[in-house]
Amino acid sequence: MRKHQFAAALAPALLAALSAPLGAQETEAPTPTSIVKAAPESDWKQIAAEDLLVMDLAPDAGGEPRRVVIQLMPGPFSQPWVENIRTLARAHWWDGLSVYRAVDNWVAQWGGGEGEGFNPPALPEGVVSPVRDYTIPADRILTPRVWTNGAVGDFEQAVAPFRTMKADAIWTARMTDPYASFYAFADGFPVGLGLTATPDRRPVPHGPDLAWPLHCYGSVGVARDLAPDTGTGSELYAVIGHAPRQLDRNIAVVGRVIEGIEHLSTLPRGTGGYGVYETREEDTPIVSVRLASEMPEAERPEFVYLDTASESFARYAQVSANRSDAFYTVPAGGIDVCNLKVPVKRVGED
Amino acid sequence: MRKHQFAAALAPALLAALSAPLGAQETEAPTPTSIVKAAPESDWKQIAAEDLLVMDLAPDAGGEPRRVVIQLMPGPFSQPWVENIRTLARAHWWDGLSVYRAVDNWVAQWGGGEGEGFNPPALPEGVVSPVRDYTIPADRILTPRVWTNGAVGDFEQAVAPFRTMKADAIWTARMTDPYASFYAFADGFPVGLGLTATPDRRPVPHGPDLAWPLHCYGSVGVARDLAPDTGTGSELYAVIGHAPRQLDRNIAVVGRVIEGIEHLSTLPRGTGGYGVYETREEDTPIVSVRLASEMPEAERPEFVYLDTASESFARYAQVSANRSDAFYTVPAGGIDVCNLKVPVKRVGED
Repeated sequence: MRKHQFAAALAPALLAALSAPLGAQETEAPTPTSIVKAAPESDWKQIAAEDLLVMDLAPDAGGEPRRVVIQLMPGPFSQPWVENIRTLARAHWWDGLSVYRAVDNWVAQWGGGEGEGFNPPALPEGVVSPVRDYTIPADRILTPRVWTNGAVGDFEQAVAPFRTMKADAIWTARMTDPYASFYAFADGFPVGLGLTATPDRRPVPHGPDLAWPLHCYGSVGVARDLAPDTGTGSELYAVIGHAPRQLDRNIAVVGRVIEGIEHLSTLPRGTGGYGVYETREEDTPIVSVRLASEMPEAERPEFVYLDTASESFARYAQVSANRSDAFYTVPAGGIDVCNLKVPVKRVGED
Repeated sequence: MRKHQFAAALAPALLAALSAPLGAQETEAPTPTSIVKAAPESDWKQIAAEDLLVMDLAPDAGGEPRRVVIQLMPGPFSQPWVENIRTLARAHWWDGLSVYRAVDNWVAQWGGGEGEGFNPPALPEGVVSPVRDYTIPADRILTPRVWTNGAVGDFEQAVAPFRTMKADAIWTARMTDPYASFYAFADGFPVGLGLTATPDRRPVPHGPDLAWPLHCYGSVGVARDLAPDTGTGSELYAVIGHAPRQLDRNIAVVGRVIEGIEHLSTLPRGTGGYGVYETREEDTPIVSVRLASEMPEAERPEFVYLDTASESFARYAQVSANRSDAFYTVPAGGIDVCNLKVPVKRVGED
């Protein structure tokens, strides 16, 4: 039927983009979706309830609920801000505040705001702007947690898993990045690595052997004033456009939206300075922000992500970088780290 | 004033993202915005009226007009589809049709649709699906039109302009790309190049020495069925998320949205298969699509873009890849091609 043909026009890519649960037929070429669907249960890892931030916005114009679920960044990255965020959530600090800024192809931002028209409550005790520490020594993650069993600092061992992939294109696919020596994944999050021992020995401006979290679509970061201020985490933004990677190492990345990003990405864009809404009436009210661990157990949302150290994820990456199926006739031979989206799903979802 | 400080929190990046006209003070470090603002008038090139497609959507819920302006892809790229699009516009073929699909972090799509509930008019005579030809021989653009005066095929000459930039970081900044040997700009549009003589001699899957247009945020492409169909251009999409570069060389890119992308990016996401709205009532009606060249002269929108072969653009690229100012303390040392947005503004705009 032509309709289905038409619907399939962008389908393989669409499915990849959405990690949608439709599987390919056995006889069809593998797609990122079919690989994710075939991943054994043991390759999925549960996200801890204290790492889930549940933000309920006011219902939309049609009365529909708007829930945004954020997975907080695991250690060792950005933990001082993540701790602030947990403190703010436990204090119900965001309840009654708003999403007050939206800029196309950039960010939607929420919290208490600042300046005329804003009147945020005092911050809970202990919530202060942490010292600037956006990167960590790479040897803190260059362990089995980064696609490798290599010893810390042993580059040959560290990259061995990549070398088992087919052809240079895969190597490049995995690691070429304009903003880092190469990229990798740690505990389900994409990270940049600045290493001295990379094949291209690409210089990293601020010291070798560092690792840092990345700004991709859906990433949540800590808004701040001019440097050296680092923000507290009370004002947060989510990326709703092309990955603004130039913010990496300049801002604390504290997590990512794993459900409900459309409630932020479809908001009207602000027409005031820097995309802040001109009046508070245009803001979207926040009803509540809770850690899942503080919600009654029966109400807690539960999610799993595909273990980025698993064979399934390696295969997913390989196929994503080399799409070759009924729709794609020219494999890219590479993939941008932010297009290699870590699959996340609700517990029990197919 | 704290308010201004706060508003400035993401300001330099924000300005870059929006190509906003606010200039930096003389005493401040140069920013992408300050360089664009300082570009002489001779560095701006007018977009021909026959290269502007003006799509008026039905007014929004508040009665506000919604105009989307698209710049069509200049030759030698994608011209058979661009010609189809001009024919469709002259026939007023899209008038009364709709935006019928929106997928978060992916695309918004419009045209006549296909299948149950859709009833598109017949295509004008001569509008057929062109043969698949998504790439061109690189020597068709390896001329002064791509940041170079080098002879065709002379790589050393071709890359000489890059080498006059400071440090390897700039080289990398300009050209590192997971999806191509390197990237460049041709007549204001980003292009991928697959060359055999690149420094990294990165293999290009489908033949050396090719050039092709890219999918970035705002890019407009031709929806199609499964390969080898290539689509006609009657069904178009605009990218409203992170650049889906895996579509490069698999779909015809025919232009980019230069004004009004927010009228597409904020549309509710479709809940039917592949993000198609479940009912036609959810569609956004298209009032009209016109080539600017067919509009009365007084009503034609007029735009200029920053010549990508100009010294201003080279400087803009250099500073964009190495932000170092009151907000950014860690220069990236590189930039993704889709973050190096070609500045476009209305004629007469500051």
